[in-house]
Amino acid sequence: MFPEYDVIVVGAGHAGSEAAAAAANLGSKVLLVTMNMQTIGQMSCNPAMGGIAKGQIVREIDALGGYSGIVTDQSMIQFRMLNRSKGPAMWSPRTQNDRMLFAAKWREQLEQTPNVDFYQDMVRSIIVKDNKACGVVTGLGHHIPSKSVIVTSGTFLNGIIHIGEKNFGGGRIGEKGATGITEQLVELGFEADRLKTGTPPRIDGRSLDYSKMEEQKGDEEITGFSYLDVPKPKAQDQISCWITYTSTETHELLKTGFDRSPMFAGRIEGVGPRYCPSIEDKINRFADRDRHQIFVEPEGWNTVEIYVNGFSTSLPDDVQYKALTSIPGFENARMFRPGYAIEYDYFPPTQLTHALETKLISNLFFAGQINGTTGYEEAACQGIMAGINAHQKAKNLDPFILKRSEAYIGVLVDDLISKGTEEPYRMFTSRAEFRTLLRQDNADLRLTELSHNIGLASEERMEKVRNKKEGVEQITAILKEFSVEPSEAEAYLQSKNSSPLLQKQRALQVLLRPNIDLVAMCKYIPRLGAALSSFNRDTLEQAEIQIKYETYIEKEKELVQKMSQLENLIIPDTFDYDKVAALSNEALQKFKKIKPRTLGQASRISGVNPSDVQILMIYMGR
Amino acid sequence: MFPEYDVIVVGAGHAGSEAAAAAANLGSKVLLVTMNMQTIGQMSCNPAMGGIAKGQIVREIDALGGYSGIVTDQSMIQFRMLNRSKGPAMWSPRTQNDRMLFAAKWREQLEQTPNVDFYQDMVRSIIVKDNKACGVVTGLGHHIPSKSVIVTSGTFLNGIIHIGEKNFGGGRIGEKGATGITEQLVELGFEADRLKTGTPPRIDGRSLDYSKMEEQKGDEEITGFSYLDVPKPKAQDQISCWITYTSTETHELLKTGFDRSPMFAGRIEGVGPRYCPSIEDKINRFADRDRHQIFVEPEGWNTVEIYVNGFSTSLPDDVQYKALTSIPGFENARMFRPGYAIEYDYFPPTQLTHALETKLISNLFFAGQINGTTGYEEAACQGIMAGINAHQKAKNLDPFILKRSEAYIGVLVDDLISKGTEEPYRMFTSRAEFRTLLRQDNADLRLTELSHNIGLASEERMEKVRNKKEGVEQITAILKEFSVEPSEAEAYLQSKNSSPLLQKQRALQVLLRPNIDLVAMCKYIPRLGAALSSFNRDTLEQAEIQIKYETYIEKEKELVQKMSQLENLIIPDTFDYDKVAALSNEALQKFKKIKPRTLGQASRISGVNPSDVQILMIYMGR
Repeated sequence: MFPEYDVIVVGAGHAGSEAAAAAANLGSKVLLVTMNMQTIGQMSCNPAMGGIAKGQIVREIDALGGYSGIVTDQSMIQFRMLNRSKGPAMWSPRTQNDRMLFAAKWREQLEQTPNVDFYQDMVRSIIVKDNKACGVVTGLGHHIPSKSVIVTSGTFLNGIIHIGEKNFGGGRIGEKGATGITEQLVELGFEADRLKTGTPPRIDGRSLDYSKMEEQKGDEEITGFSYLDVPKPKAQDQISCWITYTSTETHELLKTGFDRSPMFAGRIEGVGPRYCPSIEDKINRFADRDRHQIFVEPEGWNTVEIYVNGFSTSLPDDVQYKALTSIPGFENARMFRPGYAIEYDYFPPTQLTHALETKLISNLFFAGQINGTTGYEEAACQGIMAGINAHQKAKNLDPFILKRSEAYIGVLVDDLISKGTEEPYRMFTSRAEFRTLLRQDNADLRLTELSHNIGLASEERMEKVRNKKEGVEQITAILKEFSVEPSEAEAYLQSKNSSPLLQKQRALQVLLRPNIDLVAMCKYIPRLGAALSSFNRDTLEQAEIQIKYETYIEKEKELVQKMSQLENLIIPDTFDYDKVAALSNEALQKFKKIKPRTLGQASRISGVNPSDVQILMIYMGR
Repeated sequence: MFPEYDVIVVGAGHAGSEAAAAAANLGSKVLLVTMNMQTIGQMSCNPAMGGIAKGQIVREIDALGGYSGIVTDQSMIQFRMLNRSKGPAMWSPRTQNDRMLFAAKWREQLEQTPNVDFYQDMVRSIIVKDNKACGVVTGLGHHIPSKSVIVTSGTFLNGIIHIGEKNFGGGRIGEKGATGITEQLVELGFEADRLKTGTPPRIDGRSLDYSKMEEQKGDEEITGFSYLDVPKPKAQDQISCWITYTSTETHELLKTGFDRSPMFAGRIEGVGPRYCPSIEDKINRFADRDRHQIFVEPEGWNTVEIYVNGFSTSLPDDVQYKALTSIPGFENARMFRPGYAIEYDYFPPTQLTHALETKLISNLFFAGQINGTTGYEEAACQGIMAGINAHQKAKNLDPFILKRSEAYIGVLVDDLISKGTEEPYRMFTSRAEFRTLLRQDNADLRLTELSHNIGLASEERMEKVRNKKEGVEQITAILKEFSVEPSEAEAYLQSKNSSPLLQKQRALQVLLRPNIDLVAMCKYIPRLGAALSSFNRDTLEQAEIQIKYETYIEKEKELVQKMSQLENLIIPDTFDYDKVAALSNEALQKFKKIKPRTLGQASRISGVNPSDVQILMIYMGR
């Protein structure tokens, strides 16, 4: 009934869908197994993509040839570039999305990917022979052979849903959980643990009074995520979000349910996401704050359903309801369904290699929440990396690994593998050492060629990158040559409170002044506009960033250079740490468990001291 | 957390969605409770609406002001008017639909209906006080009060899914079943039983070879279901279906699984739909037939998923697969998921009144598969009737009942209530005594005014009906007056092999000739075209049907008149059958159980003889 596949992907959320797409586009024969073909690409939590650090990740996935950026652009109902007033390293694209359209577009993308087959069934175990994954067994009893297996189980593995004192099994509310895989893998020697996440109630938007909230509109210009030209909505058609606040009254009402809280009563064992806490957690931890922001997110173009961001909770639903109605604008709110917490199995990610392959069972890959992360973007980027590496493994090719200096994806994978995580891991810009390099505007320049080299990013993408690179060089050359007359620049400089030119000056020098931007310069100085008229906005912006931030960028590149000395010192797989005398006990244990790939990685393992790294370096130097 | 509702609807499939819409549009405050807000308006089985007798029902629902026709028109990918070559009583509209769009449009319609609230939870029991339903209790423990309750549980009540020797609980594959209601109602004295239905495997359309199948295109003209003007796709954009056939080889392959068939092994207790049998059933029952037709239906505009109509099966999935690949065009077929059978609870519908209210518990209504029917249209029409009557009851208004001579819906309800059903009940034109009256073209003329009178069908609909009626009268008058010159008609009559006119003749007389149609007449005789230019196609067609079939129509109307004598003899609720001597034992039992509303209904109860009806009539005459 089934042929042998190169790659079987278990689960079709953000991680699984990207994994299937990547492996298939590389030429692997892929089977995507999902418990329900109608829930492919579901947004289980909020209807939004991107944001700070996460927006950069979506751009990186797109630059590698993944689908998340395309699907997000196709289904967005609002776009905002966060942090525009800060330096470009902080710019972060974020969208609100139509939840149903997002899922529909994911399914459409996958169906249009020639090498992806689909099968609806629950995977209950992995076929393992000689410590090598070689297929899956399904609930209906099928043994489906494959060269690699990627597990992306999300919150489904032994999922338990909590609402107040009630709890019941499920992968999402209204959906069955999955069983079998954890038990099998633990028997094979894996370590598994529990995490917890939560989601807020969904509300009938017809019952809200928006006049009591602050409106948050989309940007006037929509740039989107994908480097390809994806049709996007018109700016004026965007749907607004709304902001309101809890009050001390809300907090008092919520506290009346604390004695029935599954979290406070200890019924929930799993650790929740620190940076996406439940509202009861926020009240508890920040007792001095008399209000918390509530971000009211519409769920799509044609639905009245509302997502109450900031109000994730597992308190009893009568308490949720009473507290909600104390929020300005929510006085008459009707709930479609309550918020809830969900506990699920994850496998501490120190059990993985940088290719996201498990160390215990080769050809078995994990991606997404199973590795202890939280967030669609974090899941999706692991998916594409696991998809690539499962393909590489199936075809006996080298693993594809991104460095910390190349991508947020590199930071994420290295963090997980080296440090593990005991709570749901979320990406922040602060986790990256080189965030001036890892910008949302240059993910294509950083990554598309790497991906093109292994056959994933298309020639179309590569051609766009070449054009952008050449364009930047040409623009820079033109700006270096072009002389601006004082009279030409007068009006613009005055409007920006910038001192007038005393004599003619190279355009590049003018651009370097603070508050001056290239697009406006082109508008005010028609001769310059004409000289640069053949370049698109994206390329102009890229040239401008590279010119204005050259010093910072160069400094960080030097730093990368320095650090890479440690990164380039590869520790052989077979290295025997026991022979290294003088290592601290903790370092010895961690090294043996995590098996760092490089001295750089060794240095980032928690509990490892610089002296341990030096000892290792000296020993290896012999 | 919840106000008191007028009507609570349990379940949001075809029945529940129509019920909620009808009650709300009549002015009831409605709560629609569903286990999953993302599966509202799901097509659980094939992606098609209408067909013979069923198409008439959808037109009737639309004429009453229901949403099925609108949603179907909005989401159709193909339209066909079946039986166009037969008399207009047999014309039956049928569509293929985009499964995802159909559900999305249903949800959109419901969200735009002001009085419908939504809540996602499982209803586990009905609140009953003094034999009166007054709310529901949910899985999360909420007691939600209401004046009426409508249960539309579909296949979810204690649903068990069978595939070969495997079986497991579920409401649809990949979805949880529902529990609690049956047990409670049985305790209250209800009779419950099991039925079974089935669905075929879903296939990856990319794996099929259509060159080996016959194409079935949509009509060149799309009329649609709704009497309102709903935007429909362009005829040339329609997606084709495909026809292929099983072979003796297919049948032999299927037989290899008979020993593992849950049906033949007796693991399935429920009775399946006689007229929508599984492929194994067809092979078994019609052993002499060496092939069965397979109707290959696309699932939507943008999906490769295919529905294999005619191949419903619960055989082991390896057998399903092997047999499928023996069908021309399916040699390389890949299955998305296997076919399966599902068993579920139903309540024999003789326990209901004509208002679809249960006799045991007042204010409790049932609609759809819970009453033993099969089919989206059968479910939807019960939904709208239950919705109307639950509203009427909540507001202390008279029940709204359609007669057998007024609508297929009247036939369906009367059949269920009077005769009950021991297998899934499906509508056929043969079930109606007056099918010349119950046409798809005149559902608006038959029903819109009745519905408008109680406040459901909108003024817009009523206005259209008035215009249509007046138009028909005007057209008829014009045709009676208009003289056709022999020379004018010559070309047209010749083209139709109709003898030439010998002298001028009234247009009406010409129209009465066989093979002559009004639209063509208008085209060939420009003077007539000009005289009728102000009437739309629908009205012209209506006038033509009424003129051409006048004799048949009048005859049937006389018959209705005659039969109505019995229908008008109302039997009081309190009638004591025990006092009627000489009734046959069977009739006595049935009458006491079913409590027929009229002598007409009494005469249709199975096992009741004409003599029993006469005895009753004589007794009542006293």
